[in-house]
Amino acid sequence: MQTPKPSITCFGELLLRLSPPGHQKIQQAKSFEANYGGAEANVAASLASMGHNSQFITRLPDNTIGKTAKSQLAFYGVDTQHIQFGGERMGVYFLETGTMQRNSSVIYDRANSGMATIEQGMIDWDAIFENTQWFHWSGITPALSISAVEVCMEALTAAKRHGVTISCDLNYRGKLWQYGTSPAAIMPELISMCDLVLGGKDDARIMLGVQFKDSDGYDATPQRIKEHFPSVKWVATSLRKSYSASHNSIAGVFYDGENTYHSPTYDMPTMVDRVGGGDAFMAGLIHGMLSYESDYQQVINFAAAASCLKHTIHGDISLSTVQEVEQLAAGHDAGRVSR
Amino acid sequence: MQTPKPSITCFGELLLRLSPPGHQKIQQAKSFEANYGGAEANVAASLASMGHNSQFITRLPDNTIGKTAKSQLAFYGVDTQHIQFGGERMGVYFLETGTMQRNSSVIYDRANSGMATIEQGMIDWDAIFENTQWFHWSGITPALSISAVEVCMEALTAAKRHGVTISCDLNYRGKLWQYGTSPAAIMPELISMCDLVLGGKDDARIMLGVQFKDSDGYDATPQRIKEHFPSVKWVATSLRKSYSASHNSIAGVFYDGENTYHSPTYDMPTMVDRVGGGDAFMAGLIHGMLSYESDYQQVINFAAAASCLKHTIHGDISLSTVQEVEQLAAGHDAGRVSR
Amino acid sequence: MQTPKPSITCFGELLLRLSPPGHQKIQQAKSFEANYGGAEANVAASLASMGHNSQFITRLPDNTIGKTAKSQLAFYGVDTQHIQFGGERMGVYFLETGTMQRNSSVIYDRANSGMATIEQGMIDWDAIFENTQWFHWSGITPALSISAVEVCMEALTAAKRHGVTISCDLNYRGKLWQYGTSPAAIMPELISMCDLVLGGKDDARIMLGVQFKDSDGYDATPQRIKEHFPSVKWVATSLRKSYSASHNSIAGVFYDGENTYHSPTYDMPTMVDRVGGGDAFMAGLIHGMLSYESDYQQVINFAAAASCLKHTIHGDISLSTVQEVEQLAAGHDAGRVSR
Amino acid sequence: MQTPKPSITCFGELLLRLSPPGHQKIQQAKSFEANYGGAEANVAASLASMGHNSQFITRLPDNTIGKTAKSQLAFYGVDTQHIQFGGERMGVYFLETGTMQRNSSVIYDRANSGMATIEQGMIDWDAIFENTQWFHWSGITPALSISAVEVCMEALTAAKRHGVTISCDLNYRGKLWQYGTSPAAIMPELISMCDLVLGGKDDARIMLGVQFKDSDGYDATPQRIKEHFPSVKWVATSLRKSYSASHNSIAGVFYDGENTYHSPTYDMPTMVDRVGGGDAFMAGLIHGMLSYESDYQQVINFAAAASCLKHTIHGDISLSTVQEVEQLAAGHDAGRVSR
Amino acid sequence: MQTPKPSITCFGELLLRLSPPGHQKIQQAKSFEANYGGAEANVAASLASMGHNSQFITRLPDNTIGKTAKSQLAFYGVDTQHIQFGGERMGVYFLETGTMQRNSSVIYDRANSGMATIEQGMIDWDAIFENTQWFHWSGITPALSISAVEVCMEALTAAKRHGVTISCDLNYRGKLWQYGTSPAAIMPELISMCDLVLGGKDDARIMLGVQFKDSDGYDATPQRIKEHFPSVKWVATSLRKSYSASHNSIAGVFYDGENTYHSPTYDMPTMVDRVGGGDAFMAGLIHGMLSYESDYQQVINFAAAASCLKHTIHGDISLSTVQEVEQLAAGHDAGRVSR
Amino acid sequence: MQTPKPSITCFGELLLRLSPPGHQKIQQAKSFEANYGGAEANVAASLASMGHNSQFITRLPDNTIGKTAKSQLAFYGVDTQHIQFGGERMGVYFLETGTMQRNSSVIYDRANSGMATIEQGMIDWDAIFENTQWFHWSGITPALSISAVEVCMEALTAAKRHGVTISCDLNYRGKLWQYGTSPAAIMPELISMCDLVLGGKDDARIMLGVQFKDSDGYDATPQRIKEHFPSVKWVATSLRKSYSASHNSIAGVFYDGENTYHSPTYDMPTMVDRVGGGDAFMAGLIHGMLSYESDYQQVINFAAAASCLKHTIHGDISLSTVQEVEQLAAGHDAGRVSR
Repeated sequence: MQTPKPSITCFGELLLRLSPPGHQKIQQAKSFEANYGGAEANVAASLASMGHNSQFITRLPDNTIGKTAKSQLAFYGVDTQHIQFGGERMGVYFLETGTMQRNSSVIYDRANSGMATIEQGMIDWDAIFENTQWFHWSGITPALSISAVEVCMEALTAAKRHGVTISCDLNYRGKLWQYGTSPAAIMPELISMCDLVLGGKDDARIMLGVQFKDSDGYDATPQRIKEHFPSVKWVATSLRKSYSASHNSIAGVFYDGENTYHSPTYDMPTMVDRVGGGDAFMAGLIHGMLSYESDYQQVINFAAAASCLKHTIHGDISLSTVQEVEQLAAGHDAGRVSR
Repeated sequence: MQTPKPSITCFGELLLRLSPPGHQKIQQAKSFEANYGGAEANVAASLASMGHNSQFITRLPDNTIGKTAKSQLAFYGVDTQHIQFGGERMGVYFLETGTMQRNSSVIYDRANSGMATIEQGMIDWDAIFENTQWFHWSGITPALSISAVEVCMEALTAAKRHGVTISCDLNYRGKLWQYGTSPAAIMPELISMCDLVLGGKDDARIMLGVQFKDSDGYDATPQRIKEHFPSVKWVATSLRKSYSASHNSIAGVFYDGENTYHSPTYDMPTMVDRVGGGDAFMAGLIHGMLSYESDYQQVINFAAAASCLKHTIHGDISLSTVQEVEQLAAGHDAGRVSR
Repeated sequence: MQTPKPSITCFGELLLRLSPPGHQKIQQAKSFEANYGGAEANVAASLASMGHNSQFITRLPDNTIGKTAKSQLAFYGVDTQHIQFGGERMGVYFLETGTMQRNSSVIYDRANSGMATIEQGMIDWDAIFENTQWFHWSGITPALSISAVEVCMEALTAAKRHGVTISCDLNYRGKLWQYGTSPAAIMPELISMCDLVLGGKDDARIMLGVQFKDSDGYDATPQRIKEHFPSVKWVATSLRKSYSASHNSIAGVFYDGENTYHSPTYDMPTMVDRVGGGDAFMAGLIHGMLSYESDYQQVINFAAAASCLKHTIHGDISLSTVQEVEQLAAGHDAGRVSR
Repeated sequence: MQTPKPSITCFGELLLRLSPPGHQKIQQAKSFEANYGGAEANVAASLASMGHNSQFITRLPDNTIGKTAKSQLAFYGVDTQHIQFGGERMGVYFLETGTMQRNSSVIYDRANSGMATIEQGMIDWDAIFENTQWFHWSGITPALSISAVEVCMEALTAAKRHGVTISCDLNYRGKLWQYGTSPAAIMPELISMCDLVLGGKDDARIMLGVQFKDSDGYDATPQRIKEHFPSVKWVATSLRKSYSASHNSIAGVFYDGENTYHSPTYDMPTMVDRVGGGDAFMAGLIHGMLSYESDYQQVINFAAAASCLKHTIHGDISLSTVQEVEQLAAGHDAGRVSR
Repeated sequence: MQTPKPSITCFGELLLRLSPPGHQKIQQAKSFEANYGGAEANVAASLASMGHNSQFITRLPDNTIGKTAKSQLAFYGVDTQHIQFGGERMGVYFLETGTMQRNSSVIYDRANSGMATIEQGMIDWDAIFENTQWFHWSGITPALSISAVEVCMEALTAAKRHGVTISCDLNYRGKLWQYGTSPAAIMPELISMCDLVLGGKDDARIMLGVQFKDSDGYDATPQRIKEHFPSVKWVATSLRKSYSASHNSIAGVFYDGENTYHSPTYDMPTMVDRVGGGDAFMAGLIHGMLSYESDYQQVINFAAAASCLKHTIHGDISLSTVQEVEQLAAGHDAGRVSR
Repeated sequence: MQTPKPSITCFGELLLRLSPPGHQKIQQAKSFEANYGGAEANVAASLASMGHNSQFITRLPDNTIGKTAKSQLAFYGVDTQHIQFGGERMGVYFLETGTMQRNSSVIYDRANSGMATIEQGMIDWDAIFENTQWFHWSGITPALSISAVEVCMEALTAAKRHGVTISCDLNYRGKLWQYGTSPAAIMPELISMCDLVLGGKDDARIMLGVQFKDSDGYDATPQRIKEHFPSVKWVATSLRKSYSASHNSIAGVFYDGENTYHSPTYDMPTMVDRVGGGDAFMAGLIHGMLSYESDYQQVINFAAAASCLKHTIHGDISLSTVQEVEQLAAGHDAGRVSR
């Protein structure tokens, strides 16, 4: 709205999420709430809510569902001009939102989507990266198909060529990676091209082949990843404790090769929606890296606070402003009504 | 509930229909109403509402969506014990319900469903037809895949072997038949095994290769089909006039090889939901054939009235009782409140 | 709202109406919309919307349902101070709202309600009639129980004693009158005490024993009733034509012993809710009698217009103002948006 | 779906539960959510969700409400073929769901229901018990009327004759038992015919006349009941602590005449719906008895976990699968999203 | 989405419309549906749906309501980068949607909005018109305040300077124009700067001082306006007949100074939402002028068809594509389901 | 309903509260829930729910919104006969309800409302106070405009003249007081005329100029206010601790000039709606003062319990009965279902 902030490009799949209202089970649902989201699109939308110029790259089916998905991103303020249309269908997932001792559950129905059948040459990366300062992708895209892996490599190579900073959220999904290879055969080469990596202990072990000592806690993950991938400059991990489906806590840890920074821990006893909590964390990291110079303590604090606030918002997408996140990070005014 | 009526077996695909509430367009939808239906399942459910013992045969994915689809048919009183579980996914379609000059529109997302990948040997037809008096299928199933055609042939052969009466609703769907053959290469052989066929002029021409004279109106269709397929005993056509997306009229015509029977025409100026209107007509035909001996005038009148009432009910499925349909067919009491 | 208009007292049962949303059938309903209404309460509420001082007398169960029913009448501006609490339960009815060729249907569950078990002496009629100019009741109350008949007689006698004008809407309900007597044995004595009677041909024949000539149309009813009950001063009939469950027309006819006055006919092709249409007519009559002196043409025109507008409003209760009804009666501005 | 599991017959009243959405009070409700349930029907439906062949026996009014209640049980997979139709009306209750310090409250409107007026000879128990391994009833049915007591005795006698295992949930309801006798005059004879009894300290004292020592905690109840009724083989108690209307804990204790088995305690700080929590416990007990041989520790653990999960589900009826309950009982994966 | 089409700039007020669901009256509303719209914004959004590059200029309050209004336009594909933030509040109106004989009614609450207090110099018209081919405004803006008139003049002068084609929809609103002058004192000067004017007979008389002959029908309006304003090149009128609040017909007439072109008349018996019907007509005109060269018959036919389709869509904004409108204008396929 | 209790008059502004459903943010809202409330109206409605004769005095716009606001108070049982109609518009506020770490937020849109433009002489205070025993107002009204201050003074003077007991809730609102004076210049004179004052430490400091010692906790506020205003007889403070937007605790402290009384503290971990929590406290105080003679411990306990229960109810208004509040205050039965 004012001085254009640096431009951020996110790339990944946009899905139609269909979820029974409230905590209904699928058997009980007479309707499904429709939300359009995806790990990387959620990052783009969060960053737009924080006032950044973000754009999203994906491939959507050329029908009303695909066009509505694009419109929804435009609603959030994301630049959608480079979205491609093509492919058979929209990827869909059904989300049943648990609570207390009942877990949430997901039924994926995303095979043969536009993104799963994306191919090299469909995206004009050079045009895109001309105005891009930061490129974000995640480990979900290479989990879709071998051609999607190729497009990731194409994008990373182009980003490198344009001097763009690159971040990746590992985002291991056990139900994907069905096309006949293992993540550990694919991801390390891609990750070695990144500047900032977000991921947890299981992600690192399964996707990157990182090995841990017995004494390593979850917060040792950034250090181990960096040891494994020296070309990666910064590594972060979000530390989620899951007391129940509706009660988690969230915190973050950040490693810059020298020091480890821990955020405070936010207790979240009555979460509204935990989907997208990690994406808001990722968006917070990117915002922090672009805004707080090298004050990594502030970066990780902002990321954790951004993630915390996401859990109060229905849908995949964080709608918090920088001011709202910074207020929480600064510990102000919890629970007041401003009037 | 009382004396068991003759048992009717219907076979086809069960789909999840997702539709924006009311007349919303997909762009406006924050949620989709969920209905489970399909041409042949709708017939089974309508017949159950009319007090018949009906069962439904299909193949559903082995997840909560598939199980809920089965439960919903049980709700309607349909016997679901022979439904098979398997295949990748639930067939889905998005339905935007038009009104006045705006047409309804459908986005199919039904590729790779359990029914599209059904194969011979998966269904135990002999067990099923042991207790079946009437078998109903439609031209939608052979439109899905070549293996689905083979299962249709398997079913028809078994039905013949067991002396079961067979009906087919031609149900031409231009957006299906994508697997590399034309309906006219498939359907005639299947249709020649049927006793009762329901279909319109376009269905007959495109799917059966029936030729019409220039002077043939829509109501000549039954006679032309019967001439083309002498082994078929009875042919019916539903005559829909479409003044707008919310204003249609419906009537029926029936031909027994000798005489043509016309029903009255029902004007429907404020339709609630026209999906399933043809299936209710088909159910009305089957009920009539099983209940009114050879009084074909009563048969076609009942079918048209059943179809008319369906248009007042949201969802694919007619919930009318025999008494309600007969009252309308008899011209009683339109628009009274019984109190 | 300022100068107190004449006070009108209505007496009858207040019911909880439970109806599936829209045109859903009961089988489809996941929820029931709750409306509190009843023939006589609807009249009281309509009159309050027209700016009259109206009060309602009934007997409600002493629980939250009963108290909410009372609060709802207060919302409409009806004086509820003389409502009595007692009895086992709230009378309930389930209403399935039809459309086109599908009739609406009602399941009554009103036995053993507070009103069905009302007894003489429970209501302080003398206190009530001290400030009452007009008393309205209907033929539904004597249909409930013999003790309810006795309270009607008690009320009418007291009204006569206080010189109150009395109106009755015959309101024949075939599903009531279950306590072992016929309406014709009860109603004539009660009706002979009334000044204004509203009723149709069937009401008159079944409840009052009025006989009609073969040549009598529906609009002869007022004259025949008056011949039968010379003590009644004015008789009116609402003339409803029912083309379908959602398409009716309404008109009115009024007889003062000398002349017959016909209103225009209003065509209503897309009715929202026809329950309470007769009660709005009745309220229009009372308003007219109190407002237009002896201009009976204006009275019947107002009643028909008030009834017509009710059919555009969901729920039992007309919310139209005098200005809105008079505008319609005067033929102004149909279908304009005032902005 | 596969090998038929042992058949379980449940008997009791099925009610229409009308509840304001969310935590609304009845005064605020513009609609009531409709759920069909009842203590014993909830057990039957829970068992069907767990893959058992369960059937339900009751008497419902012969109208659309009654038929919808039956259809809803069929949706849950319960066999409804022996449900009888008759009687005046559907039993109804209004449920206002409290939260925190505000209690839930119930208004019963169940007098004169089909079950309250059930009589000996209406149910063909011999036909039913031919295929029954386990019979479940509860102390609610004898609370309705003396004729309902007689039908209970009739059922128990027939069950004994057929060698069926019998369970009873005492389920004391202070607002019932209005027909002029005390539970303690009725229940002991019926209970002495049972094999498995579920009940709490108050149930035992009021309904069975069991006496407790001052030192007896709630978990002494099973032992005391068994001492009082030596013919009963197993007794269980669910131990609910009620911190507030939305925060309870649940655990179970089981006594086999020799040893007492305690389950873990589940803390439930944000319950969705506590109605039916005891019925899910009961269903868990029956499943456990039929599945885990004499491993009573596993039985009581399963029952407590099943009850806990019910509190996360809206409506009366648990929809958990055996796998879901066993995962919780085994302490796996609380709060994860499977994706 | 591909080749950039000519750019269209619309200028006016964006309002929050609050309307009770369905046909509820305000008294009945427990919630208000929120739609953001305004005569000129509706034109911009319709044009974006038709694939045009449209942008919208307005002034919104700098709060979440204002930002959401802007986001909503972005959802529709409108360029919002030049929207200004400032002023006290969002203009609001309450809309009660009538049906049949009950008129819709509007309560305006738009005083002191950002647009009412807009001033010269706030908008950078030169930057805007650099990329604009067509400028659209309406007679609502000068009805707000004298400073708004000045901004209109500022805009028109700049548009002329940049050689931009100008259109105006007269849009007389009797409830506005409250700041102490008459429309006829303001509008003629502004209108004389326009190329295309849309307006009806009353608009022309009240706002422009155009005089009509007694024999002039509504369709003479374009000719009379053009005679009065020779500098205006084209004049159009939409001809709405209002049979009731839910039944209108729509047609259009267009005059180019030589010939008069009439569109067909569309009957609309069950309108969903008539707000924005005129704006869709206006958008259709602009689309036609930019797409069909000087084929004014096609222009007016497209405008009338676009307006007709708008009446089938809830909310202010037409979402029809060019293909959908052209199909209707060509008379194809009314009321078919494409499947 | 029985013996008339003492009459209480409340005076202040009634607002339309528009809030997105559940915890939605305004950006997500497709509709806004409508509640009519205001600090003093909430007190009047709470007192009516407790069986008191309460009336409310305000000035509302003479349109359907204003009339519906009045009707809604009548629904709650408040006497509305002295409400005045006039002024430009209804005061509105948008409320976004936060949860956990996300605060609720309010957008006021209440300028130029009927109450903001109220003037001396519009209200007939002598008529009102003739039947009034207690008068309640709050510090919100003088925050609106200087003419509203004058009406407050007019009311207080009249109340004094009639010997009415006066209470005031200080209710500091930082977003109001925009008309060019400070609360401390206005409030002390008004407060010195009151008998009972409710307020917190910040209220006292900002609005009354009360000074606190460093050692003063929040519960010293009553004593300090009383020292500052010796003419005030009783002072109370509600002690709210805000752990998060959805988790607060509430307690109260009361000072009678001699002794300080503390209520128990209620923990509220899953609040439904905290708006109106202070008003329910105030209503509890007034009820206590009128009901428990000089048992101030019971008074403050009742007030805290009433406030606690309000937090379980959606909307501004407490609907608890005296019995419900007293049960909680007595510590009974937390979390039981009465059935």
